[in-house]
Amino acid sequence: MKYSIGIDLGGTDIKAGLLCEDGSLSCRLVVSTKVDEGVKPISTRIAQTIRKIINATESESSRNKKIIGIGIGAPGLIIANSGIIHFSPNFPGWTDIPLLDYVLTELGDINLPLYIDNDVNVMVLGELHHGAGVGYENVIALTLGTGVGGGVVIDRQVYHGSWNTAGELGHTIVQPKGRKCGCGNRGCLEAYAGAKGIVERTQQRIAEGKNTSLNTDDLTPKQIADAANDGDELAVEIFSETGRYIGIALTSIAHILNPQIAIIGGGIAAAGESLLFQHIRKEFKQRTMDIPSDMEIVPAKLGNQAGIVGAAMLAY
Amino acid sequence: MKYSIGIDLGGTDIKAGLLCEDGSLSCRLVVSTKVDEGVKPISTRIAQTIRKIINATESESSRNKKIIGIGIGAPGLIIANSGIIHFSPNFPGWTDIPLLDYVLTELGDINLPLYIDNDVNVMVLGELHHGAGVGYENVIALTLGTGVGGGVVIDRQVYHGSWNTAGELGHTIVQPKGRKCGCGNRGCLEAYAGAKGIVERTQQRIAEGKNTSLNTDDLTPKQIADAANDGDELAVEIFSETGRYIGIALTSIAHILNPQIAIIGGGIAAAGESLLFQHIRKEFKQRTMDIPSDMEIVPAKLGNQAGIVGAAMLAY
Repeated sequence: MKYSIGIDLGGTDIKAGLLCEDGSLSCRLVVSTKVDEGVKPISTRIAQTIRKIINATESESSRNKKIIGIGIGAPGLIIANSGIIHFSPNFPGWTDIPLLDYVLTELGDINLPLYIDNDVNVMVLGELHHGAGVGYENVIALTLGTGVGGGVVIDRQVYHGSWNTAGELGHTIVQPKGRKCGCGNRGCLEAYAGAKGIVERTQQRIAEGKNTSLNTDDLTPKQIADAANDGDELAVEIFSETGRYIGIALTSIAHILNPQIAIIGGGIAAAGESLLFQHIRKEFKQRTMDIPSDMEIVPAKLGNQAGIVGAAMLAY
Repeated sequence: MKYSIGIDLGGTDIKAGLLCEDGSLSCRLVVSTKVDEGVKPISTRIAQTIRKIINATESESSRNKKIIGIGIGAPGLIIANSGIIHFSPNFPGWTDIPLLDYVLTELGDINLPLYIDNDVNVMVLGELHHGAGVGYENVIALTLGTGVGGGVVIDRQVYHGSWNTAGELGHTIVQPKGRKCGCGNRGCLEAYAGAKGIVERTQQRIAEGKNTSLNTDDLTPKQIADAANDGDELAVEIFSETGRYIGIALTSIAHILNPQIAIIGGGIAAAGESLLFQHIRKEFKQRTMDIPSDMEIVPAKLGNQAGIVGAAMLAY
């Protein structure tokens, strides 16, 4: 069996694990990122985490000989082939940081190939090989979280585009004069289906006097989903509307790319079939032309593990 | 020098020519398609046209030995790798027609490889190799005509998607509750930037009492463009609005695919820089994120020849 190490570098935690080629994950570790300390100490912590995993496999067996490489997933705009973080919203001040070089230096005598890609591309790669994308060639994926991330897979390869920015599916326009998006544009999918969009649309309806069990303060998508499950009319409406916006974006994407399957993950996707997915599919089917409308729309399978699994898959 | 034959199969005419690898076109022929006669006589006419071009090259020189193949561009959904026209709006009743087999039979002893693809994909291929796309890897193209066609080029290959329907860029949604599109959906780019969309939007404003030199009857996009060039306020507004809708679609496409260049052709694109292109670019720049907004937006170069040139390029 072959193994690889996956690092999910987030603004809060560095999550790591050892992925077996059969898809099983072991040696899971979580350490604090401590963003404020800057890139050098973070590189040291990443290298220490890698070393710990390698040591654990050495003490267990001779498995370390079969570790074929290490992958890192990180938020932001990553120049995958040169190992550089061009810009990352979670790491203020990081501009064109050669993270792979730093980590390689810290790794010293550990001579394994090291790879990096955007966290959403990495999630897609995980789902492609060990999740909902197994057996498909052309896949798109959305992650519904604080923002709405996306990834495009063509012929089982993550597609990076001309300047590493392909797959920004959260910035497909769904309402040209609509809500302001964090990117500066109006009416992006993210402005409706990201956490902030969902919460603010709910607060706006409450302010307009809509009857609901929800309070405007400290509202989260999870609370809205819970209220929807308890039958709250506004909450149900907010999620069905979210689903319709996602369906509109998927129609454009299916007409442009004709993928076989759309995989939807992230915390907000946990709202599930009746609150969310049925509305996505209905809107998509109504709007999309005959043949591309055969695209399947399914939830992601790997959940929180997608980041580690996908990062580890970079080594293949 | 190598040569190939290009056939542009339209609902009205079959246009053909001999393309030299340097991009020059010769032996141009046009014969009537006569759609009503059905697929067999049309296949015969295509084969006769091919034979005429080969004979012309034989009588001129020994150039025929260097003809490496023949390509056909046809409207509709084409299954390129099996040579089948699955469906074509210009050929009523044609369903899963193995056109390449028919033409090959008619060609008899002419033993040259024969290829077919969708007319818009073929136009993109022509622009890619001998037009505005020379030197670019990742290209998208729009043709603004009766409908709004599209094509996607990735790594200098036309991308067909999972079921041969990728590149339907005219069905990117630009206004979710907007105008009804011919595809059945609402608010597709085609419903605004196709000939019918442009004419109907103009007629609607006239009906609303908007002051203009235009008459509602028998209106064409060309007349509206001419009026705009003469300073007609409504006509100018219609074209700038058309440009803004194209800019919205290009924003979504640039975020999804991150191409280097968008090539825009077709009769309506003839409205040119001041009426159309400047509005496309302005809307696109305002809406698109920093890096993907570097995508260039340029007019197509090959004009009417794109269909023949691109079809001939299928042989390479």
